[in-house]
Amino acid sequence: MMSEAASATRRGFGSDNHSGVHPEVLEAIAAANGGHVPAYGDDVFTQRAVAIMKGHLGDEIDMRFVFNGTGANVSSLAALCPTWGAVICPETAHINTDECGAPEHIAGVKLVPVRTPDGKLTPELVLPYLTGFGFEHHAQPSVISVSNATEFGTVYTPAELRALADVAHEHGMYLHVDGARIANAAVALGVSLRELVTDACVDALSFGGTKNGMLVGEAVVLFGDARTEALPYIRKQSGQLASKSRFMAAQFIAMFEGDLWERCARSANEKAADLAARAAALPGVTVTQSVEANEIFAVLPEGAIAPLQKRWRFYTWDEAKNEIRWVTSWDTTPQDIDELIADLTALLPR
Amino acid sequence: MMSEAASATRRGFGSDNHSGVHPEVLEAIAAANGGHVPAYGDDVFTQRAVAIMKGHLGDEIDMRFVFNGTGANVSSLAALCPTWGAVICPETAHINTDECGAPEHIAGVKLVPVRTPDGKLTPELVLPYLTGFGFEHHAQPSVISVSNATEFGTVYTPAELRALADVAHEHGMYLHVDGARIANAAVALGVSLRELVTDACVDALSFGGTKNGMLVGEAVVLFGDARTEALPYIRKQSGQLASKSRFMAAQFIAMFEGDLWERCARSANEKAADLAARAAALPGVTVTQSVEANEIFAVLPEGAIAPLQKRWRFYTWDEAKNEIRWVTSWDTTPQDIDELIADLTALLPR
Amino acid sequence: MMSEAASATRRGFGSDNHSGVHPEVLEAIAAANGGHVPAYGDDVFTQRAVAIMKGHLGDEIDMRFVFNGTGANVSSLAALCPTWGAVICPETAHINTDECGAPEHIAGVKLVPVRTPDGKLTPELVLPYLTGFGFEHHAQPSVISVSNATEFGTVYTPAELRALADVAHEHGMYLHVDGARIANAAVALGVSLRELVTDACVDALSFGGTKNGMLVGEAVVLFGDARTEALPYIRKQSGQLASKSRFMAAQFIAMFEGDLWERCARSANEKAADLAARAAALPGVTVTQSVEANEIFAVLPEGAIAPLQKRWRFYTWDEAKNEIRWVTSWDTTPQDIDELIADLTALLPR
Amino acid sequence: MMSEAASATRRGFGSDNHSGVHPEVLEAIAAANGGHVPAYGDDVFTQRAVAIMKGHLGDEIDMRFVFNGTGANVSSLAALCPTWGAVICPETAHINTDECGAPEHIAGVKLVPVRTPDGKLTPELVLPYLTGFGFEHHAQPSVISVSNATEFGTVYTPAELRALADVAHEHGMYLHVDGARIANAAVALGVSLRELVTDACVDALSFGGTKNGMLVGEAVVLFGDARTEALPYIRKQSGQLASKSRFMAAQFIAMFEGDLWERCARSANEKAADLAARAAALPGVTVTQSVEANEIFAVLPEGAIAPLQKRWRFYTWDEAKNEIRWVTSWDTTPQDIDELIADLTALLPR
Repeated sequence: MMSEAASATRRGFGSDNHSGVHPEVLEAIAAANGGHVPAYGDDVFTQRAVAIMKGHLGDEIDMRFVFNGTGANVSSLAALCPTWGAVICPETAHINTDECGAPEHIAGVKLVPVRTPDGKLTPELVLPYLTGFGFEHHAQPSVISVSNATEFGTVYTPAELRALADVAHEHGMYLHVDGARIANAAVALGVSLRELVTDACVDALSFGGTKNGMLVGEAVVLFGDARTEALPYIRKQSGQLASKSRFMAAQFIAMFEGDLWERCARSANEKAADLAARAAALPGVTVTQSVEANEIFAVLPEGAIAPLQKRWRFYTWDEAKNEIRWVTSWDTTPQDIDELIADLTALLPR
Repeated sequence: MMSEAASATRRGFGSDNHSGVHPEVLEAIAAANGGHVPAYGDDVFTQRAVAIMKGHLGDEIDMRFVFNGTGANVSSLAALCPTWGAVICPETAHINTDECGAPEHIAGVKLVPVRTPDGKLTPELVLPYLTGFGFEHHAQPSVISVSNATEFGTVYTPAELRALADVAHEHGMYLHVDGARIANAAVALGVSLRELVTDACVDALSFGGTKNGMLVGEAVVLFGDARTEALPYIRKQSGQLASKSRFMAAQFIAMFEGDLWERCARSANEKAADLAARAAALPGVTVTQSVEANEIFAVLPEGAIAPLQKRWRFYTWDEAKNEIRWVTSWDTTPQDIDELIADLTALLPR
Repeated sequence: MMSEAASATRRGFGSDNHSGVHPEVLEAIAAANGGHVPAYGDDVFTQRAVAIMKGHLGDEIDMRFVFNGTGANVSSLAALCPTWGAVICPETAHINTDECGAPEHIAGVKLVPVRTPDGKLTPELVLPYLTGFGFEHHAQPSVISVSNATEFGTVYTPAELRALADVAHEHGMYLHVDGARIANAAVALGVSLRELVTDACVDALSFGGTKNGMLVGEAVVLFGDARTEALPYIRKQSGQLASKSRFMAAQFIAMFEGDLWERCARSANEKAADLAARAAALPGVTVTQSVEANEIFAVLPEGAIAPLQKRWRFYTWDEAKNEIRWVTSWDTTPQDIDELIADLTALLPR
Repeated sequence: MMSEAASATRRGFGSDNHSGVHPEVLEAIAAANGGHVPAYGDDVFTQRAVAIMKGHLGDEIDMRFVFNGTGANVSSLAALCPTWGAVICPETAHINTDECGAPEHIAGVKLVPVRTPDGKLTPELVLPYLTGFGFEHHAQPSVISVSNATEFGTVYTPAELRALADVAHEHGMYLHVDGARIANAAVALGVSLRELVTDACVDALSFGGTKNGMLVGEAVVLFGDARTEALPYIRKQSGQLASKSRFMAAQFIAMFEGDLWERCARSANEKAADLAARAAALPGVTVTQSVEANEIFAVLPEGAIAPLQKRWRFYTWDEAKNEIRWVTSWDTTPQDIDELIADLTALLPR
């Protein structure tokens, strides 16, 4: 099988989920194997994983594993928002563009997309949409949802999140963070998860693990007063309750008992910074978004994109502008960067 | 971690998802790791897994991996049934009793539960519910759904499924099989998967892997004319599309490229048959359902259940009747059976 | 238009919604016309109608008009039941058989149908289904729903409803009554609406008006602690908020300010009792359900049904048994009964 | 009742649903009363109404009555769009702002709101959103939905609609028109309903009646290939099937057998044009949208709004801009206009 796999594993910058599983995570999975343990989370692995995460996020959390980001977002929104509620989010949010309508269909909520220059909401952008409270004709604004890091690789600081949380809470709403890349954001800012999430008064977090080196594993985390007895039913009904929960837990233990989550995210972020800096120095290349986590958006010279994609996997973001997206991963190597830059340089007009 | 895990791993007969992952499956996951491959199923592992499954089920299938049984059932039903459709199922079906209303809420369908003596539908039981076609007040009967093996450990033969498929097709309906234990059923009957599913004219199968030794992995399989372009969207919208699909695929490859699926299921079934025979020979013990796959339902003498549960995990099924359920797994050992029987014998009144 | 209408208006016993609008109701609609009033219920007619209904049902209600019975039931259930909740109802309930899956699809709930001999639930029939509380795999039993009068023309007494309410409340559940024929039930029992509903501790009532002589008009009524701020949003989101609410209100005022509701229901009930008694006296005719409100179920001699349906509209209920259903209406006349009995008599074998 | 009603009927420009029922419509309802006719649309009135509407819209339609605009829109969208589909609409569309999330929750679709200057979509505005076809992560663009007349009182010409229909059809999509004020649009343009809808290749129309003088009554109309056997089930399941359908039909007959629909809409439109012209001539008053149907948006001098609202009902549209909305109705009189203008003039600064 390996030779076929090898031939298939062209390296690239397509997405952080093109990479595999960190070896320490795989070891933890293997170590959790053997013997019988109860299913559905009633096991010592799950208990221990939750205890570890409380060390990161504080005791006032309800954390539940789910399978993927869509599952985490849908369960979070269903927990925070009635079916007649509205979720204010950036037009470019993953929940709005990449989940095939799951929030509307499964959580039953209405999304209200807001245009942004950089994928980030601000109180100023949000406030015009906070209307119609108590008016039965209008889907009731119930949640502000942002991604951190954003889909553009930009990052909210704790203060920026806190400002959004304040706006939300002043209006009787909640703040949800899609944290598919929450580790990258925390490492980028040099803050702890607690500082970035709990202390910023976030009410619900879709906690991402897969993009940062896990096999399969995300979590819903509800904080403080946003916790609800409804969550277990919401998760189960949404098809997001794993039977062999110990293997979800083992991955979180491997990642968060020590500093593996930081090592993975830091490595990805550093590669992105390096790649962005070196690409920006090339003639005809313009980096179009602030590179704060592990994503780079850049305009390449016409004619360079197609040949470069023959060797490297990555996505064209805006065909009209020759804008591409590169994503670095926990396993991106310095050699990957060197070779990509070399290949790109060779393709530039002289 | 191992010592903690070991102390937590009391052996038992609680469920086949209390067991871990078969070592060959874990090896396959590790072998698929490393390098970059596209996400969401556009990879060589997924292609190969699908090719292998076509070897088992025929070429006229559309197979898509999902995370768990609820996900497989919900996606199957959403693919077969309009939102104004009804799904005829046994009252004891997993979709009716153990999925927290997911079929109704996510697939948007109506379940019509039918009482059965043994968890199995027959044409005779189904026909009274096939009414109201074309009458807009009545949810339109669209799918017959059965589990094989059933929740009572009984098994449908290919001929029995074919009879249900014929009834369904004569009424413009589909036949869905919840195959969380489809391997146990096939092995029990000594037939191939193709004979049990494809040749029986089943339209959709929730293909189970987790209970038979995988880490996490099920699939939706649509057959022949039941295939629909809607399936990828349904799966994605239901939160059941894995990003690192290669690891789902690797498990299926490990299980179905050779005969691992048969070895696992046969071992579990044989242990169940042995346990049932030996338990039935004990005074005061009555086995209450035909033991055809890997589940045993039995009435134990009053007072024996609670002490036996102190050492062994298993569920009381019907408290009023002192009826319990034992489930054997791919990793159940002859020693497990010996010890359980010994413990039970010691608890019987003299 | 009248001549065409006249030729189309063959009289019958098909349903109480085959009749038209009581003239006093039409007059009230006309009297409410003219001038401008706010829409959506913020008008004096609606306020007055609600005040009148509080006179009937007590002050601790939240009453909202909706368009039809399905709308009333769906809004009631959505108000009482989370999306992971289950509604225990008779298998023959209108919500289970005649609403095309609307409760499941719109309110998002799971129905759990219970077999009954006469369309009526009892605590004994309900209790076996009140299981799985707190178990996330199981849709949480949240509501007991019954119809009064039932779909079989039988009637729950206040004591019978109170017994069901007690069972519901002891389990943290609610009792919902589908009162499409609540007026017929109250009149049949000789009790007030307050005695039949409020004093029986019902939590939510689908209040029927159309079958009893209105043009279009039903209501959701929530009682006491079951009232919720969610109701206006649920009604609006379910497409059940009328813009020109004054005309809904005017019908309720006409019906419930005086005793029109009683006169209409009493007339229908009396005709049913008369028809049932006279039919039962005929050779070969067997009345199969207790005739308590305005519906009669009867087995007719073979061969009598089809010719009788040539002149009179009514439904065959169970073709295999030659069982038919007759429904009387507020406008059924003694002459209608005389003629139906005469026609039936002429069709009987000598 | 009349005196109370009279005191409550302050005249105004709040909405065209603040007006009552045209006397000819009430007469038709009364004329349809009496006798027994089948329910749910299987009656001669409904057949005749549909035949009349085919005279207006052509034979290739499927027309079904529903209760209100939200019902019409939800049933239309559910008929045109799979649950993983997206509906492109103006940000200001009624379905996006005033239906409490019903399209998302009931039809299960995703709305994609587009910013517009005047409430109108154009191919240029729509095209950037027609992406992601065949990409399972992206809700599939399936419907373009516009309102005619729009929520800003502007009107699409047949050519403008046809251009949107062409764009839709080139992308395998449908064009839906929310025609709550379709009569006002047709009269404004001096075209027939057939020219404005059928000939413009519209696929589905929410046909409005209530705002133009009916008591309660809208319809879903599907055209040509957009017709589907699913529609009756969708309508029923959405709680939009009236039992006493003859009274819905009678209103449509009264309105569309002759020219009542035109007379009502023309009267409203003319009053709006007159009011707009006279208001625009006042110092400090600026009409902010093109007045094409029966709505006027205008900025009034600061301080004039509140006192004017003491006598006349109308809504403040944008508090920050002192922008108000006036809506004229079929029953708005020249005297209403005279008095409003006089009152406004008296409030203007000298």
